[in-house]
Amino acid sequence: MPNIIDADTIFKELKTHSVSEFFRKNSQMLGYSGKVRSLTTVVHEYVSNSIDACEEANILPEISVGIIELSETKYSVHVTDNGPGIPQKIIGRVLATVLSGTKFHRYMQQRGQQGIGGSGCTLFSQITTGKPIHIKSGTGKSAYECDLGIDIKSNKPLIINMKEIDKTFTGLSIYGEFGDVKYENSDHGVYEYVRRTALSNPHAMLKLKDPEGKEFNFIRSVTEMPKRPKASKPHPLGIGTNDLLEFAHLSESRKISSFLVDTFSRLSQNKVDELREIEKSVDFNKEPKEMTWDDAEKLVNAFKKVKWIAPDLDSLSTIGEAQIKATIKNILNPQFMSVVERKPKVFRGGIPFVVEAGIAYGGSAGKEVEGGSKGVLIRFANKVPLLFDGSICAIATAVNEVQWKRYGIKNFDEEPISVLVNVSSVYVPYSGVGKQAVSQEQEIIEEIKLAVMDCARNLQRYMSGERNRHAQASKYNTIIRYVGQLSMNLSEITGMDRGSIEAQLKSLIEGKYKKLFEADNEADENGEKSEMNVKQEDQNTEEED
Amino acid sequence: MPNIIDADTIFKELKTHSVSEFFRKNSQMLGYSGKVRSLTTVVHEYVSNSIDACEEANILPEISVGIIELSETKYSVHVTDNGPGIPQKIIGRVLATVLSGTKFHRYMQQRGQQGIGGSGCTLFSQITTGKPIHIKSGTGKSAYECDLGIDIKSNKPLIINMKEIDKTFTGLSIYGEFGDVKYENSDHGVYEYVRRTALSNPHAMLKLKDPEGKEFNFIRSVTEMPKRPKASKPHPLGIGTNDLLEFAHLSESRKISSFLVDTFSRLSQNKVDELREIEKSVDFNKEPKEMTWDDAEKLVNAFKKVKWIAPDLDSLSTIGEAQIKATIKNILNPQFMSVVERKPKVFRGGIPFVVEAGIAYGGSAGKEVEGGSKGVLIRFANKVPLLFDGSICAIATAVNEVQWKRYGIKNFDEEPISVLVNVSSVYVPYSGVGKQAVSQEQEIIEEIKLAVMDCARNLQRYMSGERNRHAQASKYNTIIRYVGQLSMNLSEITGMDRGSIEAQLKSLIEGKYKKLFEADNEADENGEKSEMNVKQEDQNTEEED
Repeated sequence: MPNIIDADTIFKELKTHSVSEFFRKNSQMLGYSGKVRSLTTVVHEYVSNSIDACEEANILPEISVGIIELSETKYSVHVTDNGPGIPQKIIGRVLATVLSGTKFHRYMQQRGQQGIGGSGCTLFSQITTGKPIHIKSGTGKSAYECDLGIDIKSNKPLIINMKEIDKTFTGLSIYGEFGDVKYENSDHGVYEYVRRTALSNPHAMLKLKDPEGKEFNFIRSVTEMPKRPKASKPHPLGIGTNDLLEFAHLSESRKISSFLVDTFSRLSQNKVDELREIEKSVDFNKEPKEMTWDDAEKLVNAFKKVKWIAPDLDSLSTIGEAQIKATIKNILNPQFMSVVERKPKVFRGGIPFVVEAGIAYGGSAGKEVEGGSKGVLIRFANKVPLLFDGSICAIATAVNEVQWKRYGIKNFDEEPISVLVNVSSVYVPYSGVGKQAVSQEQEIIEEIKLAVMDCARNLQRYMSGERNRHAQASKYNTIIRYVGQLSMNLSEITGMDRGSIEAQLKSLIEGKYKKLFEADNEADENGEKSEMNVKQEDQNTEEED
Repeated sequence: MPNIIDADTIFKELKTHSVSEFFRKNSQMLGYSGKVRSLTTVVHEYVSNSIDACEEANILPEISVGIIELSETKYSVHVTDNGPGIPQKIIGRVLATVLSGTKFHRYMQQRGQQGIGGSGCTLFSQITTGKPIHIKSGTGKSAYECDLGIDIKSNKPLIINMKEIDKTFTGLSIYGEFGDVKYENSDHGVYEYVRRTALSNPHAMLKLKDPEGKEFNFIRSVTEMPKRPKASKPHPLGIGTNDLLEFAHLSESRKISSFLVDTFSRLSQNKVDELREIEKSVDFNKEPKEMTWDDAEKLVNAFKKVKWIAPDLDSLSTIGEAQIKATIKNILNPQFMSVVERKPKVFRGGIPFVVEAGIAYGGSAGKEVEGGSKGVLIRFANKVPLLFDGSICAIATAVNEVQWKRYGIKNFDEEPISVLVNVSSVYVPYSGVGKQAVSQEQEIIEEIKLAVMDCARNLQRYMSGERNRHAQASKYNTIIRYVGQLSMNLSEITGMDRGSIEAQLKSLIEGKYKKLFEADNEADENGEKSEMNVKQEDQNTEEED
């Protein structure tokens, strides 16, 4: 008989841990794995918080990032913005309490959504250097500075050296020191992160001072604020049984019927009547607080049987077709580009999202490698660059599934091509807490594919046009080469003036090729039209897959 | 002047959320993304908890898994084990409080380590079906059953219908219903998960009843418990400044010197004296509670200057070379296999880990695909199968970096080859909360590569031996084909008996080829010796990379 150990002994060490403690031990899950990635993660968290805050305050963002090397693996990061600042009484909860935030429950597109990022930086500074972060903040009415740490066991803020400062200081300044990090000029480094942020946020002014003291200015290319996404009500198709039940139990409405109208977008009294017809066993007159799981499940099923107007799109904010074109031109200056903004769609039944895609070919598109170029994928979610975990990202899955050969690209990995994709949603389903990849949602993958294929069809037309023009030009050059000899021979035979013959022949040939070029252009235009038809058909069939 | 919105307005919705609420909204981060994966995740959490509990109680595990289809996307999962059970008074914290557990702070190799998995299943059941899970548990002294849910807002358990039952019931039985899931016979499905668990846990008896009612029994192939990993003290090289400071502040020791000896493995009084010599500015006589970050940082740096005995390995438990061979033979029945268990190493300065690898070739190794076979990678961490997120896993990175051509494998994706890797550690650095991939730690990647290359060298020897034998056999067959004709001709010329000539010729040829085969074998043996040398050199150079 083996020596069996009983349950009381086994479980005597049972403990409940704070979420800070969990992330202290598993900081790689927040993006703190690898020295280069860790530094980029810090900059990413601070910069995206700053842009969110500026946009929310209706201020054109001006953000500067300074990185100083303190020792081989220790760097300081200093981020300042011209945003609204953070009120003194809540600074500890905003930047030193994991899972505190304003954005978690809002039905609205924002860069942050978890209430983890900023406090995660405080935690990372603390566990790698033992130091608090230093904050200066001014809201216009008052200003202060302080040092900020986290009491890890309780996930509560530790605020020290709090003092008021002259209220002329406005905005937010965060200074932190971080260990186990490294500044590197790579695809995954801070410079690339800031560059791509500028690309997707043309209304932002971004400055970077690197550890060598070099300054980079990414000047804004528009001076208008992007359309502000509104916090909107959820669409009935975007809701699960559990969510509906939770909304109902928190509701102040007196009846389920009025609760439904108050809580959801597109849900009018008429729709309630339709739902009553479909689901007779639910009592729409009882209090929402009394709704059971069974009621909620029946309602969610009934929602699926009603025809709804598509989700409200005021909650989504894209980069914009013109903006993407301008930035691609600025940065890649390609021979060809095509940009598409798709119509908003829904995933998981009703969470609205929208995909934008762009393709650039030639110029500085793609990435230079030994012996040529290779294709590059530039991923964004809610306009935030995604630099890591590409291999598990829905955007990469979609781009890999495109049959590039159909579009004149023999091998994506051997062409000067850049593909840019931005997925915007009130709720981006990230695959991890570090928010570097969009999880494999089938509807999102399909939509990205369609967007990229839209662009790719234009690319293909350009590529075959290029090939045509190239072929014509080569024929023209071949013929024109014989004109001199032919004119001389004809002049000898006929006794006519050689110069005159040559001029006539040239004019004849050029006339013919001019016509050919025109015909080519007409074909292009017809092609455009028929391509539109094809596109439509494509969409119908492919979306039904 | 734009309409600027002030900070007070922006932050008025600030809220702190419970970790349950966070994972309710982001259940994909726990592995609940995709219907098939979600079901596998549930089984994975329950089965690995059961094996951990049985091993801790010193009981040979007997675990049965039953899956029933309730509707198209709703299934029940019923897992029972013969383990120690869970005491009644803590059941709510163990299975209905996210981040509660016994394993979080132990310095010991176990399957679970976060205190999230089991409670995550309760949460997932609740948000997809609105139902609690049903528990039956008996510890031998008493037994009970109850229903269990989570109060999501507070991350506290909801226990209902608790009642005592006959205490003859022992072990744990969990029944849950889950929505948004699907049973599928794929590489990522429940069957494959259970099969691979059997492969890496030969002491466990596993049963699976699938939704069609088919029963699969994975019989144990050994009846001895695996060597029980011990909870051990951390090695000085495995510790960061922040950890050291935390240990010091919790310590009851009176002096830093005795605190160091009590807390760390391999840290004797002699080593304290060495440390005193190296770091004279730290006062080793003051109370550990008074240790500063500066002190701790100096000590951690001093640790790096001392020569230490390697980490204690009692905290690690491998599958074992003989066991891996037995299971590979059982399941893949290959033409060739090679298994290697490497010596333990450390990563991040001092966290011990050990890698085992096996290669199987031919037989049922690899995966059948149209027109042939393709290579398959079977990943484990602490003997738990990893079925998802392979593309970001350190194990995949390592196997991809092996130059297979050097080992006679032209293209890994076109050969009947299976590579099995198990990484064991007191702390496996998973890349996400769902624990499906080992993060990209360079030391771990290198060690996996060396293990796989060790096996691959044996494979190469087998492959070239095979090619030799194949070539010899083909020559022999060619020559022997002419013996008849030659004997007849010689008989005609010389007048000798044809039969006798033929017999002599055959004996001559066979003699020669016998010698050749023998010579081949000798060369093999010499090859073995010289290969061993090469291997040694390889290791020295490659490990210094």
